[in-house]
Amino acid sequence: MTERLKTPFIHEDFLLETETARVLYHEYAKDLPIIDYHCHLPPQEVAENKTYENLAQIWLYGDHYKWRAMRSNGVAERFCTGDASDREKYDKWAETVPYTLRNPLYHWTHLELNRPFGISDRLLSPATADSIWNDCNAMLATPECSARGIMEQMNVETVCTTDDPVDSLEYHKKVAEDNASGIFKPRVLPTFRPDKAMAIDRPAVFFPWLEQLENVTGRTIRDFDTLIDALHDRYVFFNAAGCRLSDHGLGLFPKCELDLSGNLMPAFTRDGANLIFQKALADRSLQLPEDEINAFQWRVLFELGRMNHEFGWTQQFHFGAMRNNNTRKYLALGPDTGFDSIGDGDAALAMSRYLDALEREDKLTKTILYNLNPIYNHLVGTMLGNFQDGVTAGKIQFGSGWWFLDQKDGMETQMNVLSALGLLRRFVGMLTDSRSFLSYTRHEYFRRILCNLIGNDVAKGILPKDEKLLGSLVADVSYHNAHGYFNF
Amino acid sequence: MTERLKTPFIHEDFLLETETARVLYHEYAKDLPIIDYHCHLPPQEVAENKTYENLAQIWLYGDHYKWRAMRSNGVAERFCTGDASDREKYDKWAETVPYTLRNPLYHWTHLELNRPFGISDRLLSPATADSIWNDCNAMLATPECSARGIMEQMNVETVCTTDDPVDSLEYHKKVAEDNASGIFKPRVLPTFRPDKAMAIDRPAVFFPWLEQLENVTGRTIRDFDTLIDALHDRYVFFNAAGCRLSDHGLGLFPKCELDLSGNLMPAFTRDGANLIFQKALADRSLQLPEDEINAFQWRVLFELGRMNHEFGWTQQFHFGAMRNNNTRKYLALGPDTGFDSIGDGDAALAMSRYLDALEREDKLTKTILYNLNPIYNHLVGTMLGNFQDGVTAGKIQFGSGWWFLDQKDGMETQMNVLSALGLLRRFVGMLTDSRSFLSYTRHEYFRRILCNLIGNDVAKGILPKDEKLLGSLVADVSYHNAHGYFNF
Amino acid sequence: MTERLKTPFIHEDFLLETETARVLYHEYAKDLPIIDYHCHLPPQEVAENKTYENLAQIWLYGDHYKWRAMRSNGVAERFCTGDASDREKYDKWAETVPYTLRNPLYHWTHLELNRPFGISDRLLSPATADSIWNDCNAMLATPECSARGIMEQMNVETVCTTDDPVDSLEYHKKVAEDNASGIFKPRVLPTFRPDKAMAIDRPAVFFPWLEQLENVTGRTIRDFDTLIDALHDRYVFFNAAGCRLSDHGLGLFPKCELDLSGNLMPAFTRDGANLIFQKALADRSLQLPEDEINAFQWRVLFELGRMNHEFGWTQQFHFGAMRNNNTRKYLALGPDTGFDSIGDGDAALAMSRYLDALEREDKLTKTILYNLNPIYNHLVGTMLGNFQDGVTAGKIQFGSGWWFLDQKDGMETQMNVLSALGLLRRFVGMLTDSRSFLSYTRHEYFRRILCNLIGNDVAKGILPKDEKLLGSLVADVSYHNAHGYFNF
Repeated sequence: MTERLKTPFIHEDFLLETETARVLYHEYAKDLPIIDYHCHLPPQEVAENKTYENLAQIWLYGDHYKWRAMRSNGVAERFCTGDASDREKYDKWAETVPYTLRNPLYHWTHLELNRPFGISDRLLSPATADSIWNDCNAMLATPECSARGIMEQMNVETVCTTDDPVDSLEYHKKVAEDNASGIFKPRVLPTFRPDKAMAIDRPAVFFPWLEQLENVTGRTIRDFDTLIDALHDRYVFFNAAGCRLSDHGLGLFPKCELDLSGNLMPAFTRDGANLIFQKALADRSLQLPEDEINAFQWRVLFELGRMNHEFGWTQQFHFGAMRNNNTRKYLALGPDTGFDSIGDGDAALAMSRYLDALEREDKLTKTILYNLNPIYNHLVGTMLGNFQDGVTAGKIQFGSGWWFLDQKDGMETQMNVLSALGLLRRFVGMLTDSRSFLSYTRHEYFRRILCNLIGNDVAKGILPKDEKLLGSLVADVSYHNAHGYFNF
Repeated sequence: MTERLKTPFIHEDFLLETETARVLYHEYAKDLPIIDYHCHLPPQEVAENKTYENLAQIWLYGDHYKWRAMRSNGVAERFCTGDASDREKYDKWAETVPYTLRNPLYHWTHLELNRPFGISDRLLSPATADSIWNDCNAMLATPECSARGIMEQMNVETVCTTDDPVDSLEYHKKVAEDNASGIFKPRVLPTFRPDKAMAIDRPAVFFPWLEQLENVTGRTIRDFDTLIDALHDRYVFFNAAGCRLSDHGLGLFPKCELDLSGNLMPAFTRDGANLIFQKALADRSLQLPEDEINAFQWRVLFELGRMNHEFGWTQQFHFGAMRNNNTRKYLALGPDTGFDSIGDGDAALAMSRYLDALEREDKLTKTILYNLNPIYNHLVGTMLGNFQDGVTAGKIQFGSGWWFLDQKDGMETQMNVLSALGLLRRFVGMLTDSRSFLSYTRHEYFRRILCNLIGNDVAKGILPKDEKLLGSLVADVSYHNAHGYFNF
Repeated sequence: MTERLKTPFIHEDFLLETETARVLYHEYAKDLPIIDYHCHLPPQEVAENKTYENLAQIWLYGDHYKWRAMRSNGVAERFCTGDASDREKYDKWAETVPYTLRNPLYHWTHLELNRPFGISDRLLSPATADSIWNDCNAMLATPECSARGIMEQMNVETVCTTDDPVDSLEYHKKVAEDNASGIFKPRVLPTFRPDKAMAIDRPAVFFPWLEQLENVTGRTIRDFDTLIDALHDRYVFFNAAGCRLSDHGLGLFPKCELDLSGNLMPAFTRDGANLIFQKALADRSLQLPEDEINAFQWRVLFELGRMNHEFGWTQQFHFGAMRNNNTRKYLALGPDTGFDSIGDGDAALAMSRYLDALEREDKLTKTILYNLNPIYNHLVGTMLGNFQDGVTAGKIQFGSGWWFLDQKDGMETQMNVLSALGLLRRFVGMLTDSRSFLSYTRHEYFRRILCNLIGNDVAKGILPKDEKLLGSLVADVSYHNAHGYFNF
């Protein structure tokens, strides 16, 4: 017999410390649909309504958060990314869970066992591993736990995946057809993520990708103009497929140099970028100097910003990561396997100048800034106000706690900073950024945390005890702001 | 009929969560006079005892905090800085207030309605906008709500404005006469703010200001020595007018380069600065290279530090801001209109070397370091201790939460960091940094927050429950330390 | 008569706000032995079982924390490091204590009066100074308050001091003999701290130290190889004396430059370092350029990392300090006298590359990263995961709050960040880093804070109320992890 909890750890008032928080969550937040406007779900799995044989497949495959925790706990690579059996991997994870106390994985694990699997009477550990494995696997065999089944039972309205500009979007189209025919309700929209267009510092990535771009557009990319034209073709294509967001992954914003009159220095102009691009095209193995890489990347990002504005999309910037720190593991396992961390460096001036360069042309579109290093929180919180235009409420957004900061403390900090420096009530709220269909409870987690923050403020007397007013805030941030902001 | 609160939001125990906090605030803090040793009040308005026709004039004119919030809420520029009527602007503000929940503006707004206007039964919103407008405007017509009336009823003892070295200080003199004749009690003293003496990177600002300096001093500024001599004349003039503080606005402290023996590299000497100055004087449209700008600015700031010491003043440094980020808005509206934000960059070494350069000559005067980016909090908190001299208690001060950090969380963080790294009980406490006569309740806000911090510590058992001891701390920080520190 | 407390400030449930915290502390933490794996105790004082005439000698001599507080409070240097009498110094400290409210010194002071002196009925102040002086001095005359007596009564199992590679370790050997003969139980092990091997930027320190190294090894150091060989000799010597840790004090990790293929640029190779070293040896007064200093330091640190791995030691890195900021005081009083503070600068990339360079050769040993500037907390918290190897649980460690961060808030922050980004339950926990035999109550302080954090989490419902599970975490972090990690 496995150990059973007398009182569940995850229960209906989980994280809700005050009566106000409980009322706000249950009356104003819980039942709202989910708009997951940034994630990394594979659209193919939705199109094909993927099913899973066991908990390891849906839970551990591809989850670098769990792999990191397991490695930190002394679990060998073969149980993370290696050739151990599904059950062996799961057992190693079950061993690790009691060591994740106070880590978000401990909450996520039990939130996900609770929904969709309905398991709230056990904490995962070696003692309960077997019964949880069996119960979940039985559930996974039902239609409610297919990819589409989970999305429907979790009340998902819209999901935005993350896609390369050269993608065919065939699976998005398949899902859209099923939306149109009424077979499946949740929408799955693409997001334009043109990071490789800036990868001139990695010729082995950049040039093969340029060829793909030539293939899908039928264009010959021979200079900066044709590069931008080809990208523009893909904006048209993505837009027609329902895309309303772009996403840009940056270490930090490229630096931008201005002359005395505030104009761009030559390298940052379109002609300047073309000169650098010609140099790279002429010798595809050439390593460009840092300043040329920076100037080229700045200009590409600027042209992308202009096109984001042209199509009325929301542009997202994810910055502050330092990736692939462990060379041995990178060579063995590739990227996105759990060897990334938080970077640093000066961020304020470059971010300001980039946004200002677009603003000067009146081509700054709606923008979400996601920050991975908390040292930038206050900087970002005040950057927003520099470019709010008095037309679109909450036009420039501080993105919700991202990646390593996507946990209770990170989300609370982001909301507290945003509150102090901007307007929390205009915040477009949560997204999962996830590769897994089990992550929708993170919206629940976020909403509970939000309601709890508000409830604690009321208890301290720093917010008025006005349920309707506070309920509006909670509902706006949980759903209505995102619903109004993105023009899906 | 407008909505009335059953229990006031701002009440006598606002923010005071514990019995200890309530006793400390009411018995030890509340009734102490206000020394507002750094603000941006226009002395002319005190000298002339300005009156206000309506709430928009005293509340919204010139308040870039509110403008930022309104723009973030989608309110057009015409209702912020434009030609909309006073009532239209006020109505847009009233619409925005319910969107500022958790922002300091929500507290400030209701604190200011409570004092001096006595309105605590309504939260500002479109539903209450009309009645609050009428009630406040009626109050504004009374002598208690003139510039002087407010200062007197708020128990203001001393105010220090922020003034250009070329200022005539005529309004300060007028107020001083009224102090002397007993007509008006609060003192209004000037503060020496010579930022333009460092503005060699902005010739359009620097050279016209040099001419003004020549005019008020009757000197010809032809080299670095005569520049410093002219500034020295103004120190004499300001000192005679009761000035006891200088203030210096910096992005970050200029860098300082030393040779192997720890001596200044040539560009940082007086001769070095003169060479750079001569170059600039010879061609007033010349853009100097970054390192020469830095060296000149370092030397000017160093000479100012020496003179601050010579006159026994307290020197204030405000650093960490990045200004005028939105070029379109800057060209349309000018500076200080709500388009500034928090900057970053390395700060520790330059700050240390500047203070050390003065300390090496035994010319480091009392110093207050105000920081805008929380990433510098711990650095500043430990910098103090490097230069405490064992003569003046609390000689080097960590300034209270500034600008974007002048809110509950920012003030608590500053006090917590100062507490952990230095001596909170020697802190000279709060200042408004404000342009408005309605901001004096921020001293109340600060004192409540301080008392609440202490009260919570007692509740947790981390401070001894010794009312007299804790009351001394509260009274010292609220008033007595500032009273003893500045030699007014 | 002196003032007596009705209820003690330091009592058995000090800092334990919840029932869970109280149970965890008293049942799972309190009675565990102390492993103080990093400190600066003088081994001679243990070997000779030093006794103290009075409280000033054991409490104020060499304590730069207290000196800083006293100077901040306006106490003249003569009462800190000068020639005032022991009693005069103590009286100035007693005067200062009531001004340290909310500073860790206030807690440390009363924790230390409570243990070993048994004084919990008085708060130190001028009113109680005399009685506390007399009571403590009487205690100091007993064997329980000798160096060894204190270690024994505080249940100290192992202490690791901090030692120069040229040290004879004679006192460690003396203590080891007394361990072997059963006279004295606590072990005192050396730690290898080879900072001077990197001090090529300070020739006045570097070359005399090289001579000492030549003397103790009998080698002639004529190139980089012989330098490393000589250091290797000392690894052998220290290892034989029971050393199991090295420690490295850095401003920040030296930068490392790579070519396109990810290989070290020439200056960073062993040959490159040798060229720089030859240049320095040829002219011992030469100031090397910054990039050569950096490359040499990088290479030395890399070779030390390799040897740390060879001997299976744990390597510790202390970074983020900026030392000797006050030149006048440095010239008068020397280093480590209270004029150090927190530095800044970019840290992520250099730290990553250093660890990766060792990892690429499979020579990254167990590592503890101690950070002085909280801006690096999240960066460090995520750096760990890049290099956890899936063999040793918790191989890469985030060191406990260091120096200025070694206080309640700093420790809580470190544990909260570690929890969110890694595995708290694998944390090797507290160390005193102290020069004083009175500091062992900091382990008590840490354990109380840890238990309180856990208890508060349970109260908020964010940890399951499972005493056994949480008790394991507390006991692991308080003692068992360190016991298992270091291979003493």
